[in-house]
Amino acid sequence: MNKIRIGVDLMGNENSPQDLIAALKELTPSPHIELILIGTDEFKHHSNPFPYITAPEVIEMDEPPLAALRKKKKASLCIGMRLLKEGKIEALVSAGNTGALVSSAKMILSTLTGILRPCLLTLIPTKKNPVAVLDVGANTQVQAKHLVQFALIGTAYQQARGIEKPIIGLLNIGSEAVKGTSEHRLAYHNLQTIEHPTFRFAGNIEGTSVFDGNVDVLVTDGFTGNVFLKTAEGIATMILDRIHDHIPPNEFKKFQSLHYAEYPGALLAGVKGIVIKCHSYSTPRGFTNGVLGAIALAQENFIQALQDKLSNEIT
Amino acid sequence: MNKIRIGVDLMGNENSPQDLIAALKELTPSPHIELILIGTDEFKHHSNPFPYITAPEVIEMDEPPLAALRKKKKASLCIGMRLLKEGKIEALVSAGNTGALVSSAKMILSTLTGILRPCLLTLIPTKKNPVAVLDVGANTQVQAKHLVQFALIGTAYQQARGIEKPIIGLLNIGSEAVKGTSEHRLAYHNLQTIEHPTFRFAGNIEGTSVFDGNVDVLVTDGFTGNVFLKTAEGIATMILDRIHDHIPPNEFKKFQSLHYAEYPGALLAGVKGIVIKCHSYSTPRGFTNGVLGAIALAQENFIQALQDKLSNEIT
Repeated sequence: MNKIRIGVDLMGNENSPQDLIAALKELTPSPHIELILIGTDEFKHHSNPFPYITAPEVIEMDEPPLAALRKKKKASLCIGMRLLKEGKIEALVSAGNTGALVSSAKMILSTLTGILRPCLLTLIPTKKNPVAVLDVGANTQVQAKHLVQFALIGTAYQQARGIEKPIIGLLNIGSEAVKGTSEHRLAYHNLQTIEHPTFRFAGNIEGTSVFDGNVDVLVTDGFTGNVFLKTAEGIATMILDRIHDHIPPNEFKKFQSLHYAEYPGALLAGVKGIVIKCHSYSTPRGFTNGVLGAIALAQENFIQALQDKLSNEIT
Repeated sequence: MNKIRIGVDLMGNENSPQDLIAALKELTPSPHIELILIGTDEFKHHSNPFPYITAPEVIEMDEPPLAALRKKKKASLCIGMRLLKEGKIEALVSAGNTGALVSSAKMILSTLTGILRPCLLTLIPTKKNPVAVLDVGANTQVQAKHLVQFALIGTAYQQARGIEKPIIGLLNIGSEAVKGTSEHRLAYHNLQTIEHPTFRFAGNIEGTSVFDGNVDVLVTDGFTGNVFLKTAEGIATMILDRIHDHIPPNEFKKFQSLHYAEYPGALLAGVKGIVIKCHSYSTPRGFTNGVLGAIALAQENFIQALQDKLSNEIT
């Protein structure tokens, strides 16, 4: 069995690279997994047992993505993206500038066949099975055709996870077909009338009922999806912190991925490679959860499975 | 002291008017409060101790608002709006079609001086004081100038509640000024550069940090705000239901207005009259919480206070 190599961009998280390295050292080691860290020179020797690639530049969180990518070709996230492209790592984990991460993935890795726009996909817990939510932040504004593609990507993702005919919902402010913007109404119509769908379209879903777990995939634009995710995290964290001492551990476990300290990151779906985006405010624990997620996807050769499923959907 | 009369539109809620009447009967009666119910003929005699106005028509939830208002001038919510305009009630509570409620309020009551668009405002709990969130559903798409006005309305609202210089946040997907759509960036700039502000602008706020309670007013468009509110309710309800038996009652109380069963409704802010919008899926208890909120606002002559504060802001 070949070693699985995971590239870890240490820059862009609010915690120092030292703290991230300390957390990564706590992961149960496996002889089949190798973590390769990417960061600036100053953190290279910080009691670091991992292979380390020095990046001379860092893209800051408030830099305009495209200008930063033009100027800083040796930034940590660009180095990571090229390693992934060249097959020197099987997955990349980063908490860096979202716009720069998405743009560099598009430019360096390129998108899967037929995909117009990559999007960020995350699983969140419900009363039943977890729901795949996309887009949670890659595309601030989208058209109906992008929403329809997100549905297809989400379908392929859930099929790769073993759900034969996933149920799709469109995140909206009411269940009626007339709700939302003209792009929502057009996406609703197109999802409802698509021929031979590999999914079942359940119509519009409101934020209240997402958590009932009646849909497998929740489709939304990246602005609304990002607010949705962060609001869920904010509320869950407030309540869980407040009542932590009263809850049995098994109940806490069920909701922990909603706690922002534990959030395992989102998959940048639709590009040729496994890229996991963690929040800039991830705790070291959340960040290592992202690394564990990347390992799991790499082990199951996820991108190939996704491309195979998508080939049936997008022509 | 004059009696305070609250008009209650019984139609449009998912619970039957009988169930709402039963819940309203449980409210502690006060000789200074009179509830006046508005509904279709069939519910008139359902062991109803309240004055009852028969509405021959009802606007359904999936009707296009403007067409419905043209066609059904005798719908329950239009009758309620006219009673409010004529000073026959001091406030109106309805769980009806949001678009129809907003449009009929604009047409019949008209907006407060200088207000471009009314918006839905609700208070939600945080780790500190409750935050006023607006718009939570009246305007699906807005421009920067509307977001700026929502900030002014929210400021006046919190000032009327006793906060001298409210802190304003703009709901966005990152704290940096470049985040969001062009309308967000323009609103950010305009809020930052407004002369002699009666508020303090704290910049962009993410869904995670809203619940830290560091802002008094959260400004957003009606689509995002509605998703924000319903997501908060959905998560809170899932967690609270699941761990209800483990939480001390005083902790549950703190979050109960986030539980959708208890959500007290939103104020339609910016029109000449107190209009409270409850969710169509409000439980009878959530609906009566809306009535209690309307009573409180009517008792403090809230609209006059809001108009006075706004006159200082909008010229």
